[in-house]
Amino acid sequence: AAGIIVIITVSDTCYKNPTNDTSGPTLVELVKSLFPQSTIQTTIIPDERKIIEDKLKEYCMKNADLIITTGGTGFSNRDVTPEATRAVIEKEAPAISVALTIESLKKTPMAMVSRSVSGICDKTLIINFPGSKKAVIECFEVVKPILHHAIEIIKNDTKKVKSVHD
Amino acid sequence: AAGIIVIITVSDTCYKNPTNDTSGPTLVELVKSLFPQSTIQTTIIPDERKIIEDKLKEYCMKNADLIITTGGTGFSNRDVTPEATRAVIEKEAPAISVALTIESLKKTPMAMVSRSVSGICDKTLIINFPGSKKAVIECFEVVKPILHHAIEIIKNDTKKVKSVHD
Amino acid sequence: AAGIIVIITVSDTCYKNPTNDTSGPTLVELVKSLFPQSTIQTTIIPDERKIIEDKLKEYCMKNADLIITTGGTGFSNRDVTPEATRAVIEKEAPAISVALTIESLKKTPMAMVSRSVSGICDKTLIINFPGSKKAVIECFEVVKPILHHAIEIIKNDTKKVKSVHD
Ligand code: NA
Repeated sequence: AAGIIVIITVSDTCYKNPTNDTSGPTLVELVKSLFPQSTIQTTIIPDERKIIEDKLKEYCMKNADLIITTGGTGFSNRDVTPEATRAVIEKEAPAISVALTIESLKKTPMAMVSRSVSGICDKTLIINFPGSKKAVIECFEVVKPILHHAIEIIKNDTKKVKSVHD
Repeated sequence: AAGIIVIITVSDTCYKNPTNDTSGPTLVELVKSLFPQSTIQTTIIPDERKIIEDKLKEYCMKNADLIITTGGTGFSNRDVTPEATRAVIEKEAPAISVALTIESLKKTPMAMVSRSVSGICDKTLIINFPGSKKAVIECFEVVKPILHHAIEIIKNDTKKVKSVHD
Repeated sequence: AAGIIVIITVSDTCYKNPTNDTSGPTLVELVKSLFPQSTIQTTIIPDERKIIEDKLKEYCMKNADLIITTGGTGFSNRDVTPEATRAVIEKEAPAISVALTIESLKKTPMAMVSRSVSGICDKTLIINFPGSKKAVIECFEVVKPILHHAIEIIKNDTKKVKSVHD
């Protein structure tokens, strides 16, 4: 299970000045402790739909196991991460986003303003997190129990293997 | 924050006889107390997808801050408000609908029959509520804590402003 | 209310060897006790998107009141039931899937891995359940309180009837 995991910070502000990025580095630490064997790659890109889409596609083609984005999920004109994600995924995984909403709503009604999308592109699981460090910590806690299992199913294609063997 | 807020009652029955409309006037009172400075406009239209879409687009072009629809979200053949809304919005805000479902399910399993959609068209937030007075009161209570903030983000385009200033 | 209810087991493994199918027969018993007057039809098909779509369309054209699918909702490459369902439905009923997710999450975080879709095609309500017997029992318990009412609304077209009478 020693694949590639990618953290993409989507933010005009962080793109201009990477020292503004606190949620990206926080995510890296969280991912490292859950996937100590994996290679973690990071990038910071502006809130541009085309750039987000291209970056997501690039890492899907590189067979990343997991891409977590942080930022660009809100109601501002520049927030387009969910639209870019939806354009790239082949299968949506709405229950991940619903689980994030359920847990976030326990903390604040402002959870309603997140438009996070989750889904699968080829062999890569993509999950959108909001842009704040606090939200990133809370959201990772929610998906943590399923990440290893989810990645295994997507990668190993258990069903096909089983069908060949029986 | 003294913009336009629109209440659209979508209902064949109310369109024929406006005195049947109890959820529309209820919504007007709720909106008035939360937005005492805003101009509130109301309209009653039949359950016709094309008419609903055109009305939504009309108020988006007039730069309404918020459109709340009531009615047409159920399972009947004539219920097409969600489809009309989805055709108009550029960005979906699924966590609003999920929050409405979570709270409504606490009251009744019939909440499963609502198909409400929420999203953003240009600078306008659009939220579908079911058609009953009771549902309208409950749903407004759910979105009330985020409406001012959500409208501010959509209108003021904080991100762009910030990016120009730094 | 003595219509047709269809249980579709979507599974490569069960398609090859129908004795593997435990969730299908479980669903039949659950449906029988809730709809003792209805005709229940069952079928087992492989995890092929085209076949799933065609089968769903076939039963919609036969005016089935309800189709419940079991299987093919996960993260495996072969899991395509949600995509086939989304291609067939004219109206999505997202609150059903959200209700299923809310209840399943109370049991296990693995509920995040289900991608179940629900919606309406013509006069037929379609609901995706996961493939395990345990999940099928839990999910049926969630939708049970609304099924009779939901089918009535879709079939009887109450709104139109009412509008003709007044
Ligand atoms: Na952001």
